[in-house]
Amino acid sequence: MSQKKREHKTYVMKFGGSSLAGPKEILQTASIIKKYASDSNLVIVCSAMGDTTDHLLKAVEHAKKGETNLARAVISKVHQGHMSAVSQCISEQKYKDVCRDWLAELFDEIDKVLLGISLLRDLSPRSMDYILSFGERLATFIVSNTLASMGLKTKYLSGGEAGIMTDESFGSAEPVLKITNEKLRSKLLPLIADGVIPVVAGYIAETLESHEFITLGRGGSDYTATLIAAAIDADEIVLWTDVDGMLSADPRIIKNAKILEQVTYLEAMEMSAFGAKSMQPRALEPAARKGIAVRIRNTFNPSIAGTLIMSPNKIANGARSGVKAVGSIPNVGAVTISGASIVGSPGTAAKIFDILKFLGVPILMMSQSVSENNVSLVVKREHLHKVVKAFKKELLLEDPDSSARANFDGRTNFNFLDYEDDVTIVAVLGRGMIGTPGIAGRVFSTVAKFGINIRMIAQGSSEINISFVIKDKDRAKAVAALHEEFVVKD
Amino acid sequence: MSQKKREHKTYVMKFGGSSLAGPKEILQTASIIKKYASDSNLVIVCSAMGDTTDHLLKAVEHAKKGETNLARAVISKVHQGHMSAVSQCISEQKYKDVCRDWLAELFDEIDKVLLGISLLRDLSPRSMDYILSFGERLATFIVSNTLASMGLKTKYLSGGEAGIMTDESFGSAEPVLKITNEKLRSKLLPLIADGVIPVVAGYIAETLESHEFITLGRGGSDYTATLIAAAIDADEIVLWTDVDGMLSADPRIIKNAKILEQVTYLEAMEMSAFGAKSMQPRALEPAARKGIAVRIRNTFNPSIAGTLIMSPNKIANGARSGVKAVGSIPNVGAVTISGASIVGSPGTAAKIFDILKFLGVPILMMSQSVSENNVSLVVKREHLHKVVKAFKKELLLEDPDSSARANFDGRTNFNFLDYEDDVTIVAVLGRGMIGTPGIAGRVFSTVAKFGINIRMIAQGSSEINISFVIKDKDRAKAVAALHEEFVVKD
Amino acid sequence: MSQKKREHKTYVMKFGGSSLAGPKEILQTASIIKKYASDSNLVIVCSAMGDTTDHLLKAVEHAKKGETNLARAVISKVHQGHMSAVSQCISEQKYKDVCRDWLAELFDEIDKVLLGISLLRDLSPRSMDYILSFGERLATFIVSNTLASMGLKTKYLSGGEAGIMTDESFGSAEPVLKITNEKLRSKLLPLIADGVIPVVAGYIAETLESHEFITLGRGGSDYTATLIAAAIDADEIVLWTDVDGMLSADPRIIKNAKILEQVTYLEAMEMSAFGAKSMQPRALEPAARKGIAVRIRNTFNPSIAGTLIMSPNKIANGARSGVKAVGSIPNVGAVTISGASIVGSPGTAAKIFDILKFLGVPILMMSQSVSENNVSLVVKREHLHKVVKAFKKELLLEDPDSSARANFDGRTNFNFLDYEDDVTIVAVLGRGMIGTPGIAGRVFSTVAKFGINIRMIAQGSSEINISFVIKDKDRAKAVAALHEEFVVKD
Amino acid sequence: MSQKKREHKTYVMKFGGSSLAGPKEILQTASIIKKYASDSNLVIVCSAMGDTTDHLLKAVEHAKKGETNLARAVISKVHQGHMSAVSQCISEQKYKDVCRDWLAELFDEIDKVLLGISLLRDLSPRSMDYILSFGERLATFIVSNTLASMGLKTKYLSGGEAGIMTDESFGSAEPVLKITNEKLRSKLLPLIADGVIPVVAGYIAETLESHEFITLGRGGSDYTATLIAAAIDADEIVLWTDVDGMLSADPRIIKNAKILEQVTYLEAMEMSAFGAKSMQPRALEPAARKGIAVRIRNTFNPSIAGTLIMSPNKIANGARSGVKAVGSIPNVGAVTISGASIVGSPGTAAKIFDILKFLGVPILMMSQSVSENNVSLVVKREHLHKVVKAFKKELLLEDPDSSARANFDGRTNFNFLDYEDDVTIVAVLGRGMIGTPGIAGRVFSTVAKFGINIRMIAQGSSEINISFVIKDKDRAKAVAALHEEFVVKD
Repeated sequence: MSQKKREHKTYVMKFGGSSLAGPKEILQTASIIKKYASDSNLVIVCSAMGDTTDHLLKAVEHAKKGETNLARAVISKVHQGHMSAVSQCISEQKYKDVCRDWLAELFDEIDKVLLGISLLRDLSPRSMDYILSFGERLATFIVSNTLASMGLKTKYLSGGEAGIMTDESFGSAEPVLKITNEKLRSKLLPLIADGVIPVVAGYIAETLESHEFITLGRGGSDYTATLIAAAIDADEIVLWTDVDGMLSADPRIIKNAKILEQVTYLEAMEMSAFGAKSMQPRALEPAARKGIAVRIRNTFNPSIAGTLIMSPNKIANGARSGVKAVGSIPNVGAVTISGASIVGSPGTAAKIFDILKFLGVPILMMSQSVSENNVSLVVKREHLHKVVKAFKKELLLEDPDSSARANFDGRTNFNFLDYEDDVTIVAVLGRGMIGTPGIAGRVFSTVAKFGINIRMIAQGSSEINISFVIKDKDRAKAVAALHEEFVVKD
Repeated sequence: MSQKKREHKTYVMKFGGSSLAGPKEILQTASIIKKYASDSNLVIVCSAMGDTTDHLLKAVEHAKKGETNLARAVISKVHQGHMSAVSQCISEQKYKDVCRDWLAELFDEIDKVLLGISLLRDLSPRSMDYILSFGERLATFIVSNTLASMGLKTKYLSGGEAGIMTDESFGSAEPVLKITNEKLRSKLLPLIADGVIPVVAGYIAETLESHEFITLGRGGSDYTATLIAAAIDADEIVLWTDVDGMLSADPRIIKNAKILEQVTYLEAMEMSAFGAKSMQPRALEPAARKGIAVRIRNTFNPSIAGTLIMSPNKIANGARSGVKAVGSIPNVGAVTISGASIVGSPGTAAKIFDILKFLGVPILMMSQSVSENNVSLVVKREHLHKVVKAFKKELLLEDPDSSARANFDGRTNFNFLDYEDDVTIVAVLGRGMIGTPGIAGRVFSTVAKFGINIRMIAQGSSEINISFVIKDKDRAKAVAALHEEFVVKD
Repeated sequence: MSQKKREHKTYVMKFGGSSLAGPKEILQTASIIKKYASDSNLVIVCSAMGDTTDHLLKAVEHAKKGETNLARAVISKVHQGHMSAVSQCISEQKYKDVCRDWLAELFDEIDKVLLGISLLRDLSPRSMDYILSFGERLATFIVSNTLASMGLKTKYLSGGEAGIMTDESFGSAEPVLKITNEKLRSKLLPLIADGVIPVVAGYIAETLESHEFITLGRGGSDYTATLIAAAIDADEIVLWTDVDGMLSADPRIIKNAKILEQVTYLEAMEMSAFGAKSMQPRALEPAARKGIAVRIRNTFNPSIAGTLIMSPNKIANGARSGVKAVGSIPNVGAVTISGASIVGSPGTAAKIFDILKFLGVPILMMSQSVSENNVSLVVKREHLHKVVKAFKKELLLEDPDSSARANFDGRTNFNFLDYEDDVTIVAVLGRGMIGTPGIAGRVFSTVAKFGINIRMIAQGSSEINISFVIKDKDRAKAVAALHEEFVVKD
Repeated sequence: MSQKKREHKTYVMKFGGSSLAGPKEILQTASIIKKYASDSNLVIVCSAMGDTTDHLLKAVEHAKKGETNLARAVISKVHQGHMSAVSQCISEQKYKDVCRDWLAELFDEIDKVLLGISLLRDLSPRSMDYILSFGERLATFIVSNTLASMGLKTKYLSGGEAGIMTDESFGSAEPVLKITNEKLRSKLLPLIADGVIPVVAGYIAETLESHEFITLGRGGSDYTATLIAAAIDADEIVLWTDVDGMLSADPRIIKNAKILEQVTYLEAMEMSAFGAKSMQPRALEPAARKGIAVRIRNTFNPSIAGTLIMSPNKIANGARSGVKAVGSIPNVGAVTISGASIVGSPGTAAKIFDILKFLGVPILMMSQSVSENNVSLVVKREHLHKVVKAFKKELLLEDPDSSARANFDGRTNFNFLDYEDDVTIVAVLGRGMIGTPGIAGRVFSTVAKFGINIRMIAQGSSEINISFVIKDKDRAKAVAALHEEFVVKD
């Protein structure tokens, strides 16, 4: 069914913004691609150059205030950066010319759009996606021509041209999978079969009905890569970035954080929840479904193998099982609802979660004890107050500051609510912890040595993490202690 | 407002079945009452004698099978027991006669009812409550007359006569509080003011509309006592039983379990969830609302002060804070739901709890980790399979035994479900744990020394327990180790 | 597949209580059966004799009050009636003896059960169904033996023995269709093949799990007949009763009401909603699904063909289409909710119906006008006040009697509620009305001639009736006028 | 409380687009105002001039396609129209100058905004409201200065400046009533007290939080007028338009439609649902709450009294009660759901309306017959197919085209669905119909004379209309016949 050359392995390689930050980086990226191209089938997915997306957003902000000149100044620098890339990366004149025309055309359009925003002092989500689309379209076109001027056969494609068709949710589009898969296959496989490298603009796609530019939201370029890989049955996805791989802890807190060599898809997802430089769960899904390994590598240190995200049943025997990493999410809020109306009322939990659903507030962590007379929830701090307000109103809870909370551990009635707004979630992460007795004990003893108080704990039975809540001020201490205990010592 | 004598303290004393097991025990109970009566106002609440309720249930079982003679044989023994009590406890002839008439009348009625059941081989919940009402009515009448023949002024009252009026939920009636409080006050306070001791049949009440006997369900006699105490503003409730107080662990597992001297209402409720010989949360509520202390004492060891359940702000300075007890609930089941449809879907939790609400299944314990890609729940083992079945059907989850669960930690798709049916909840209990760093660490290190694997953990931020799930086989080991570590050593 | 003799037609015949009222009626019934038996396959379904069910209910009422003797007196008459039937209907001694034994056994059991109820002064729905089962078991056994003594081969079967297995909803059991169909076929077809007439007790069935007697609720004997007919693919169902067929109007109001020769299943269902002597919709369903015709005939006037309920596509060309009957439902209540919160609020209708669902109140009739600023509902009068109360509370409606309803057609705000409790629904019924222009005009002009005010109208686009609401006092006038106009004149 | 001069009546007068179509019309409007100003307090509310709003929308459409020149051409004509108005309506130079500056400024801004849209080829709802705001701002400013140059003291105010503060629902803002009322009073009453005529831009308001222009949606200028009148307790609202009043039928169908002299608020609302040139129900609400009469008059025929919308209890004795008008809504769709799952299932109606709520589809008309085995609904034709699709899916209904619908009036099972997409709703409207016997009969007889088939009927008990559904092709015939019968003849 697949038309690609089977003698060669097929890689989908995505290069992030840092790998395309400037002429030097683009040339490094190109050299990597060239090396692989000799004995592999390749599909290349590109982000925008460096901080281009941020600059576009900044220009939009200026434009919305009517500061046309400031907006133009921002774009001017972006323009120069792209011009330099063209000058320095592309040797052959004809590709240079093509690129310069492309830049001229796109920057004219950017100018028009920003002017439009300046005049309206307003823009719709549709226009926001449109302006964001320029970053990837510019960078990808340059990369494609850079490779061409190095002698490779390439074909530039926007996300939509490659085949990614979506719904109309501007800002976080969802692909229409069946059509997208068919289109990706019918577009890319013939190119590959002809020895052409498709160079695809990541992050952006096309609306199925109105054929407009749209973006895939956070982690969108990774998602472009995994969607393509799953559609064409690629052998591996390589996400080229500027770090050596996924780390055992946040390097801003832990200097000696280690590179993780192999993690499972689930571990990678869990770690991503803790802000590790890694993938969005959604972006991993197409790879996980097909069992396609995802490698995270450093464009600027290509000799290092990086981190391989893969099926657990393919992980080498020697691969460690147990705690692999320590993560944390600061600036969260914890809410606890207690009371008699919760005892013996099977519908109360349902009501609590209906309220959260209505508010659109995701639950970061949740715990309920045996006696069923209270439920604790952790949410992002920015959501805390609206949750507290809604619970008080909808569940008729006592004000937690009521002066009359006396007899009943300070409660005047049994239905009451408490919250803390200065807390952090800390988690130890790793598959197989559940089969290793003593980990929970070591976790909490380690934390206790530093006099850190545990506010809340959650560990689910099939989870690969133990999460707990501490005060914000104890965060660095707790993460360091756990990293020392589990990652460094082990 | 209150008409009781203010110079005296007012006690509501409830004597359980073991305190009324036979003539000897009733005399012991009477001597305790007599002692208190000299300088206190009293309301006495009585359970049925010894195993009377069980015998009534057994007779009903026989009757439902048409085994009239077996039913009558069971009742005959109960009759003899009550006759002995009358003979041996009541000295004065006129009270003896009154009691014998009462017994004759009530046992005649029991015989008729059992014959009716034998003929129908069936009975309604209403008739079940009717037959159960005899136990308390018989014992309470004997106690009342025993006290009278000792020279005390008493007045026998059924629960309904005392004033407890309920809805029509046969088997677990709910009092109509406003009416009940008014009636209790207007009935009992004048008696107390006249120096009469009301002797009230516990557990049974009267339906507000149809004026029939009805029972208050589990822990009903305690509830009778606290309802009365709250209505008449009693100074203390004393629950006389056959143990020295609430214990630091289940004495069947832990030989050297200690008596807890003071616990808060909330601690008592939590401990009751772990099956400690203690009160139903519902029965504590009227006392807690009014801040009336509840003492648990041993009828047969009255020199011991027992356990005092009270407001935290009245607990003496020296009272220990931290882990006070270790409990466990064996034979539970754990379910974990994972998957992509849970990631990023704020409505999934709401759906899960709607299903549990629909099934009427209470949640014993619940935990959800940071990444929001799974939720773990613990339910009674008897509910496990219907929960698993409903989740699979309603949430379109993969069969956990699917042979195709390969790539994704054994999952073919991201929506799947696992469960364990051989697990136990263990909890360390005690107010103030949350302010004591290191307790979680000690808990899990202690358990780890025995190689016990932790399947799931939950600690909410205002909770007074840390709960975790282990395999059933590890239960005794875990409870013993924790009791040794926290109760014995501390 | 079917094992019945194909040369003969197969009838399922059900004889109602009036057809079995006494010896004379049973002999008449038997003579009808004998006539058919000569050239047809038959299954006979019997109700209880005459008013037996009412007498059983009356005896239960006495027993619940402890009036054992009155209960026994009622039953004694029932016993005598059945004894007379045995004496006079059964000629052959051996069948007489079998029947007398049967009566002795069953009346002994009835006596025991009534005594049981007298003693308990209470009974469960399960026991109620048990006692009701005697009526059909007695009558059916007598009919079976009457036929036997006339030389026919018969076999008495209770509903459960015939194969009707149900859930546990005592009082209105629902058959478990798949199992019931299989059992009915495997039990009845071999008997029929052997030339035996199964004589089945209608109305009663057996619980699938606990194997107890249970009743099918209102119209249960008809349902027994149609379930059997559908299972064994009978050619026709005959419901023998004491009227000549379905009538064009209630004969208590309209003296010259006509017999309807042919009606469709849907027409029969609609007419049954208007209390015509006819079938429950549920009872018609098995026949309608299989397209088996149902004939209603008069046991005491067997020369008349009666009414044939059948598929519309089998109705003879000459069969009239248009208004066939006029029905009415007196003693209903109408509620109208109006207001601005309804205008433009697509959720209000949903909320109204959620409330009715919660209350368990069926809607008899409903109407909403174009502007969407009010909804009118008709419910049974007994439900009216709880509906009004719930709507006022849940929808925050104005009291309809508010003195301040001035400006806005008497409304102080736009959300208000009105109701009428002295109204009747009248309907003209008949398939094909919708294709006959002018019927609505004739209906309302006819009513108008009598100065009758129309409060509310509803006609759905595929309906076979036009319904409208008038004051109770106008009922007889309206029905008579419409019957004259549409049935007599046409 | 009110500071206005009590000796004078206070009118809020709104002049619609046709009353401001050009210089001549504005002068006519001004002469009307001048006449009233001599002995009344006035607040004037203006719409945009003639077709200005349509032209702005057309320009936006061009701009969205990038057709800047076409957009500018459209605006250029609008500009000229406004310039002419200034030239011809304003005599005094200083007011002319002020207006020309105003036009210059606003048309510059319009040009900028359209250019912005052209560049973006897109605009947000916020920007749409911004551009629509120009129409009212331009016209109102010109009217204010026209009046000033005629010697009246006036003050131009945008809707927000007058005090109308709203939520952020761009396109159909909802006023925050409490704040709006306070602001309107504190802004307008002092002006009135000073003898100044506030001239307020209708339709546009200001967002409470972000202080941006926003529009009140359909009927917005009327709503501006009634909000103001209710806030300042005006004596009457006059809506000046280009028709002589509300008519007894659509004059495109009925040549001799009559002017209705007096109608109640409710009648006006009902008629507006049928597209009569009248008010939105929402716009009437503030007037109805306060009982302020609303008069509809013709600017170009001011000698005619027009239609007075008022409280029913103020309507003169001679005012007709009964059918006042005949309306119709063509191009609707009717859906009928039938079946056994509806019979006896109190939850089915709730489910049907939950689906409609989810789809956001308003119900135009609804009917359910007595037997509760079907429900008929009428919705806008554009909603029909999604309703049909959702019902089939969610209620598991049979395909209406199933070839197997045989026995059961063409149904293979009892749950099925039919629809018609070529139908029209016709209604006769008028308060008091319900107290007039014979109207329904006359309605349907009248229609029947023309051989028109009635598909569905609904009349609620407190309604002031009888609605029915016919085929589209019969619409004109039915409306004409009913108008002749009820309006012309009566």
